[in-house]
Amino acid sequence: MIPNVLAQRYASTEMNDIWSAEGRILLERQFWIAVMKAQKELGLAISDQAIADYEKVVTEINVESIAERERITRHDVKARIEEFNDLAGHEEIHKGMTSRDLTENVEQLQSFRALELVARKTATTLIRIGERCQQWRDLVITARTHNVAAQPTTFGKRLAMFGEELHVSLKALEQLISVYPVRGLKGAVGTQMDSLSLFDGDKEKVLELEKKIIQHLGIPQLFTNVGQVYPRSLDLAVVSCLNQIASAPSSFCKTLRLMAGHETASEGFAKGQTGSSAMPHKMNSRSCERINGLRVILGGYLTMASSLAGDQWNEGDVSCSVVRRVMLPDAFLAIDGLFETLLTILNQMDVYEEVIASENRHYMPFLMTTTVMMEAVKAGAGRETAHHAIKKHAVATVKDLRNGTIEQNDLMRRLADDPDIPLDDEALASIMQTAHENTGLATEQIDDFMSQLEDVLGTYKLAGEYKPSTIL
Amino acid sequence: MIPNVLAQRYASTEMNDIWSAEGRILLERQFWIAVMKAQKELGLAISDQAIADYEKVVTEINVESIAERERITRHDVKARIEEFNDLAGHEEIHKGMTSRDLTENVEQLQSFRALELVARKTATTLIRIGERCQQWRDLVITARTHNVAAQPTTFGKRLAMFGEELHVSLKALEQLISVYPVRGLKGAVGTQMDSLSLFDGDKEKVLELEKKIIQHLGIPQLFTNVGQVYPRSLDLAVVSCLNQIASAPSSFCKTLRLMAGHETASEGFAKGQTGSSAMPHKMNSRSCERINGLRVILGGYLTMASSLAGDQWNEGDVSCSVVRRVMLPDAFLAIDGLFETLLTILNQMDVYEEVIASENRHYMPFLMTTTVMMEAVKAGAGRETAHHAIKKHAVATVKDLRNGTIEQNDLMRRLADDPDIPLDDEALASIMQTAHENTGLATEQIDDFMSQLEDVLGTYKLAGEYKPSTIL
Amino acid sequence: MIPNVLAQRYASTEMNDIWSAEGRILLERQFWIAVMKAQKELGLAISDQAIADYEKVVTEINVESIAERERITRHDVKARIEEFNDLAGHEEIHKGMTSRDLTENVEQLQSFRALELVARKTATTLIRIGERCQQWRDLVITARTHNVAAQPTTFGKRLAMFGEELHVSLKALEQLISVYPVRGLKGAVGTQMDSLSLFDGDKEKVLELEKKIIQHLGIPQLFTNVGQVYPRSLDLAVVSCLNQIASAPSSFCKTLRLMAGHETASEGFAKGQTGSSAMPHKMNSRSCERINGLRVILGGYLTMASSLAGDQWNEGDVSCSVVRRVMLPDAFLAIDGLFETLLTILNQMDVYEEVIASENRHYMPFLMTTTVMMEAVKAGAGRETAHHAIKKHAVATVKDLRNGTIEQNDLMRRLADDPDIPLDDEALASIMQTAHENTGLATEQIDDFMSQLEDVLGTYKLAGEYKPSTIL
Amino acid sequence: MIPNVLAQRYASTEMNDIWSAEGRILLERQFWIAVMKAQKELGLAISDQAIADYEKVVTEINVESIAERERITRHDVKARIEEFNDLAGHEEIHKGMTSRDLTENVEQLQSFRALELVARKTATTLIRIGERCQQWRDLVITARTHNVAAQPTTFGKRLAMFGEELHVSLKALEQLISVYPVRGLKGAVGTQMDSLSLFDGDKEKVLELEKKIIQHLGIPQLFTNVGQVYPRSLDLAVVSCLNQIASAPSSFCKTLRLMAGHETASEGFAKGQTGSSAMPHKMNSRSCERINGLRVILGGYLTMASSLAGDQWNEGDVSCSVVRRVMLPDAFLAIDGLFETLLTILNQMDVYEEVIASENRHYMPFLMTTTVMMEAVKAGAGRETAHHAIKKHAVATVKDLRNGTIEQNDLMRRLADDPDIPLDDEALASIMQTAHENTGLATEQIDDFMSQLEDVLGTYKLAGEYKPSTIL
Repeated sequence: MIPNVLAQRYASTEMNDIWSAEGRILLERQFWIAVMKAQKELGLAISDQAIADYEKVVTEINVESIAERERITRHDVKARIEEFNDLAGHEEIHKGMTSRDLTENVEQLQSFRALELVARKTATTLIRIGERCQQWRDLVITARTHNVAAQPTTFGKRLAMFGEELHVSLKALEQLISVYPVRGLKGAVGTQMDSLSLFDGDKEKVLELEKKIIQHLGIPQLFTNVGQVYPRSLDLAVVSCLNQIASAPSSFCKTLRLMAGHETASEGFAKGQTGSSAMPHKMNSRSCERINGLRVILGGYLTMASSLAGDQWNEGDVSCSVVRRVMLPDAFLAIDGLFETLLTILNQMDVYEEVIASENRHYMPFLMTTTVMMEAVKAGAGRETAHHAIKKHAVATVKDLRNGTIEQNDLMRRLADDPDIPLDDEALASIMQTAHENTGLATEQIDDFMSQLEDVLGTYKLAGEYKPSTIL
Repeated sequence: MIPNVLAQRYASTEMNDIWSAEGRILLERQFWIAVMKAQKELGLAISDQAIADYEKVVTEINVESIAERERITRHDVKARIEEFNDLAGHEEIHKGMTSRDLTENVEQLQSFRALELVARKTATTLIRIGERCQQWRDLVITARTHNVAAQPTTFGKRLAMFGEELHVSLKALEQLISVYPVRGLKGAVGTQMDSLSLFDGDKEKVLELEKKIIQHLGIPQLFTNVGQVYPRSLDLAVVSCLNQIASAPSSFCKTLRLMAGHETASEGFAKGQTGSSAMPHKMNSRSCERINGLRVILGGYLTMASSLAGDQWNEGDVSCSVVRRVMLPDAFLAIDGLFETLLTILNQMDVYEEVIASENRHYMPFLMTTTVMMEAVKAGAGRETAHHAIKKHAVATVKDLRNGTIEQNDLMRRLADDPDIPLDDEALASIMQTAHENTGLATEQIDDFMSQLEDVLGTYKLAGEYKPSTIL
Repeated sequence: MIPNVLAQRYASTEMNDIWSAEGRILLERQFWIAVMKAQKELGLAISDQAIADYEKVVTEINVESIAERERITRHDVKARIEEFNDLAGHEEIHKGMTSRDLTENVEQLQSFRALELVARKTATTLIRIGERCQQWRDLVITARTHNVAAQPTTFGKRLAMFGEELHVSLKALEQLISVYPVRGLKGAVGTQMDSLSLFDGDKEKVLELEKKIIQHLGIPQLFTNVGQVYPRSLDLAVVSCLNQIASAPSSFCKTLRLMAGHETASEGFAKGQTGSSAMPHKMNSRSCERINGLRVILGGYLTMASSLAGDQWNEGDVSCSVVRRVMLPDAFLAIDGLFETLLTILNQMDVYEEVIASENRHYMPFLMTTTVMMEAVKAGAGRETAHHAIKKHAVATVKDLRNGTIEQNDLMRRLADDPDIPLDDEALASIMQTAHENTGLATEQIDDFMSQLEDVLGTYKLAGEYKPSTIL
Repeated sequence: MIPNVLAQRYASTEMNDIWSAEGRILLERQFWIAVMKAQKELGLAISDQAIADYEKVVTEINVESIAERERITRHDVKARIEEFNDLAGHEEIHKGMTSRDLTENVEQLQSFRALELVARKTATTLIRIGERCQQWRDLVITARTHNVAAQPTTFGKRLAMFGEELHVSLKALEQLISVYPVRGLKGAVGTQMDSLSLFDGDKEKVLELEKKIIQHLGIPQLFTNVGQVYPRSLDLAVVSCLNQIASAPSSFCKTLRLMAGHETASEGFAKGQTGSSAMPHKMNSRSCERINGLRVILGGYLTMASSLAGDQWNEGDVSCSVVRRVMLPDAFLAIDGLFETLLTILNQMDVYEEVIASENRHYMPFLMTTTVMMEAVKAGAGRETAHHAIKKHAVATVKDLRNGTIEQNDLMRRLADDPDIPLDDEALASIMQTAHENTGLATEQIDDFMSQLEDVLGTYKLAGEYKPSTIL
């Protein structure tokens, strides 16, 4: 049998449990039992013994036996009903329900619990990023735009940038969870006619039954007007949110792959791990690459979700069925694998401060030209004159560095030698000494990010404790 | 010149104004003036006269002159700075700012205002749907699943189903608007170093300046930790939300196209419009098809948005630039064209009650078999016996109808003739007379939808007044 | 363990075998043995005994043992090397090779064989469609545009339309197969340095070795200039071609779902299958819906493929790895499931000739108005006068039909009664009698399609014999 | 009016002309005239004078006048018919044709010509890449996998890798052009009934007319079985092919952006262009970033194309209309802008040989460890002993470099000092001197690429002459 590769190689046990056949069947049986209990409370003649008998066998899940039944009936829900009935020795479940009354609600419950799991792992990730922000709060690096040196920043700030993006995504996820509505027991076309028949037209009981079921599910919001299915734009909102969540990690990993190319940082090695035996110096960003790959995968599921949303015919059909069997579990398994990998990277990543310092030395004179000009003007130079001189020397220095004429950036010496710049070696050296302070409000911004995390810590109290499993 | 076809053929003037070159330049100039004013208040030496001179020429927008400047400088922002400076006769704008301090904030403002416009049009649409729900609240139709007859519902309920889906999407849009953070004045790499230099290191003034600017923009939330750009996962959230919003309209229009095929409903004609001269009977669902097409277009922009999110290198680059020039305006122009078209459909759509009644007659006996069985059992039939007889006759009736052996559904007569069913013509006729009542809680659900709309009416007080422009 | 749902529920054994862990490991081992043999022929000291020992154990595939090794080494290829070496008792495989020399070629072999399988199933499908075209060659139906009645055609022609689209796609697939280039043994960065070292710099031997390996693979074309990997735009071409192939089946199934809604045709039932027990009349287009769903799935994998193509950094990295583990097998499993389902539909589908005839009767007067006008002009009417009269009556008739004022289309009677139309009942009846001949060149077009299929029959001689497996 | 930004800012005049309103109207008028001439030849009574009068006004194109007509008729084709008729003073065009007989064929002609233009620009690009391959054929660079140093290659080889990928794509494009079938004159539902009526049932004339029209269009292949429209999977094939074509350029540009980050290469500056005035040292890869952006845009249009293919209802509808108005022109405008930009980069790009040499020096000792080991074994060292020693020193050297303990890679000195490695300074220096030869068959591969280009030069004789226009 071909396994689901995302489940097998990347996702955690917890996420596997939500989406496994066994996990789903258990949720379905619990749902049927909850419906029976509620129906009994509302007056249907279902014996305590029957309910007890169902409860006794609820975990006796034999996937192969059910599959065998499906091969005969060609109907997956019917197969699962018969199996459960035979185990319990009763025929009391699924009364007044259609298949979709079962499957829609259970699939929504899977999605809902998976969303909550993703929220918790996002919180853990934010906490880990926060720790790294503090660790490297003051480590000055050369910020890059267009992939070339631009201005100084700190490595902590670079991390906080990705952290804050992730935090914004977490808030979107929390909003989605807070409004996510479940379909409920609406019958074959959404009118609740079947429930109404069951209770001989007693509307109050129909609504009461549904209310009790929603409490069982633990999903606060409920649709009123639906058809056979809940609207698939809700699945789009879910898969889109997972894509949003995955974006900050993906940008972080792209950046770490770039830094690895410059040997300023790396994703690190697991204890005992080394590079390839043929090339022992190589520290490949395999895990970062995997995260970028998982982001691409999520983009594919987003296209699927977008294709289903807006394609409902009348009260619904099942052209979405095979898509959702693939898209929903696999999108969640992918994001879960992403977080397992990301948490491992955050635990193992490393920076090379001397390489960073060397890079800073290489670029810093260029990055300080604005300050030099300001000081030159203060010391009496004309603005245009100073600007012209600085530009001339900067371009020449770049050229000489690239041509190998010089090995060290000597822009400051050139400026000192230029009579148009009324600053001597000492004055310029003094400017260069303050270079490391030119990170603007980088550290204050980090502090702000840390204070944002307090909310996260408050909401997800145990998130800090979570340890990712060992990754391949 | 090739025009933007979405702007030219489909979108409203209001949405065109947000995304036109002139509209954007005006927003930029207003932004620069707001920055100058704030800088002056915080102590920078900018004369009142200068500000007044800029304000005087703020609407003197000559796109061709700016384009000419860009052809020389190869820098779009620089071209717009020079044009505005030359018009005003000063060089006071853009102090302590980088290009992205201008463009990111203005593009976010465009997005934000466009989101608000979409919210208002969604509200108008919900109100129109509500009116139609009430109009056809009790009109019984044959609900379909898998595109074949399933159970009775009402046409109002079918509309409420799409309405509630749209309402859920509107709530998601409102959530997005409420948390949408703007980038602010963060400088070349996000550290606010340039602002800090401008104010000689006075951090309080830097933060104060930004606060004033945010007030000018009217966007309540603000990023703290960003790079050169705001994170592109925010654009993903925007474009995804537009896709979600477009989904209920798209499903509604698919369903209306299906109904037109059965002649139970149509999108209607504009006054004086007829079918093609060659085929005058044809009422093509052109507008519904257009909406389905616009939904597909939005799916393409979603793929673009998803590709940008998670692809940030370091503090940012401009590989997103050309994409966002296309994707952001065009996604908003597409959704706007969708609403203009949808509101026209909602105004003009029609139902054919006699065709609906005929369809109901054709299918109703099948749809009532559950009731017949229940009554037969009450009247003394064995459950299995009754089930077997009903199934036999139902299948035979379907076959005869399809083979043309019969023209009218005569299932009830067959059942009356079968001794296994202890119900006579009269009893069965009486069941059929109640058939129209078998719409479950359809009308109660509509009432619930109407009560949901009260919030919408409260929030968007003028939304009910909006009239779409004439569509092509 | 969570299974791959596409493999488990939808795809055939043959496609499962190509993409299973066991299938892949067998291909790898055969590849290593082919390399060893070629290396020996070119002078490397590898004993016949060693090769024989490897060959003896080639099918002893223990996936769990290999997985255990991978958990220790964290390197999937190394784990498989060690397993095979231990089984054979030698260390002779993988000489002068890097991991990608193994995996790229084997994955391309899997893709290539899967493409060939898809081509064969497409051919079978075309043959089945051809049979149905001939069966319903002359069955007149009401063609629809915009989902409303337009002109007569034949059902055979409608099928030939989808058939010819599929045939065009098959030709594209054949072109792809004919030019599909394999990466070959190019070493770690594509320079073949490792092979060259192995043969002490003898370039001829390096090229000769690769030539022999390509012969083993049976893929005619070979890349010369690659990096660590073959370009991922080739995967895009593959997945895109599968999407193209899936499109005609998807349009056919959408149309069959629409026809099922009108009861003019259905996808049929398996022997013994009936509708749901609650609604025995219902014949749901479940299989057609599944095909539309599988098409959506393929669209998602296309987005993934498109994201990888054009994202190569330098000589390559593995950010594509996890994506290709999911996308390649799953795209092929999806298209394979699509064909298994489609062939089942083509075997079981049914048409309801009386319903079709009734639909024709309903619309035919409208569809014949062009002919009526022509004849009226011949009989002396003014063109404008006739046009005006016909339009007036056509619109009135449509209105009366929809309002239930009339039940049968009586347009011809109205025209006969109108003095502006100089045609009597008899003349008009005669026009109506020829209506069924107004299918233009529909049957000639079908004949042309049948002649196109002769090439297909010639190329895929056994394709006609293939029977799909039983579907769920 | 909002312009099409891809047309205005990025695409060439030639591509703009194909997709402009004026360009399209001209193609339509030429098509109508060709139809009239063919109809006349086949016996229809159309006067030479009428044809001459239409020909006289064929270029009198007034887009605004046509738009004005459309606002009244609400029918775009009718508006264009009336305009042309009024200009010519006849009503002879469009006989026996439906709107789609005009628009489908003309849109296919636009696509076909645009494909040919893309093929020519691809050829030009391949020629430019070939020139660069030869220029830098022997320039040794450090090849990277996982973005870290792996083995030596040459820069010419790196370019040939992207060149060969593009060449494979060109062959796919040529295959598509060779089989691209046009819809022809098939009437309202594809049966050619309208043509047949026009020729009083003379089938030969119907086929002859179509044959003449195809000759006019210059598209060799013709569909036989279609509906109202040609199958949209053909548009998918087109847009997918453009995505494939764009992939090699995109990977090349990603790599050049990476190299710019290391200052080993840059996309260069236009004559007179400098970096930003604030940071004169900065050479931003703006054009490369733009190409990566245009690739993302094409991915979005691919999603649209994929959504249309497989969504045909019956003989067709126009839910594809608005999508194709956006997707087809914009995909071609995007790829055209991509080539204009790419050709500019290929003309201006630069390498920094001293920085490359410095990078080589930094990594080369690591890259030569395989050779050192081989020589050590030859000189009498035990294989395991040598491997152990080399690994130990390599890892220590990496660590010292990253920690700043050393500035130069001194691995060779360490190995010389280790008694386990029986090679002295001189022996190791001699190995290092041969390092530059360790590029395997890189140069031979380039030669092979150059010989592949001979076909391209033969097919596209003028392609070498093309010069891109000045880009923004």
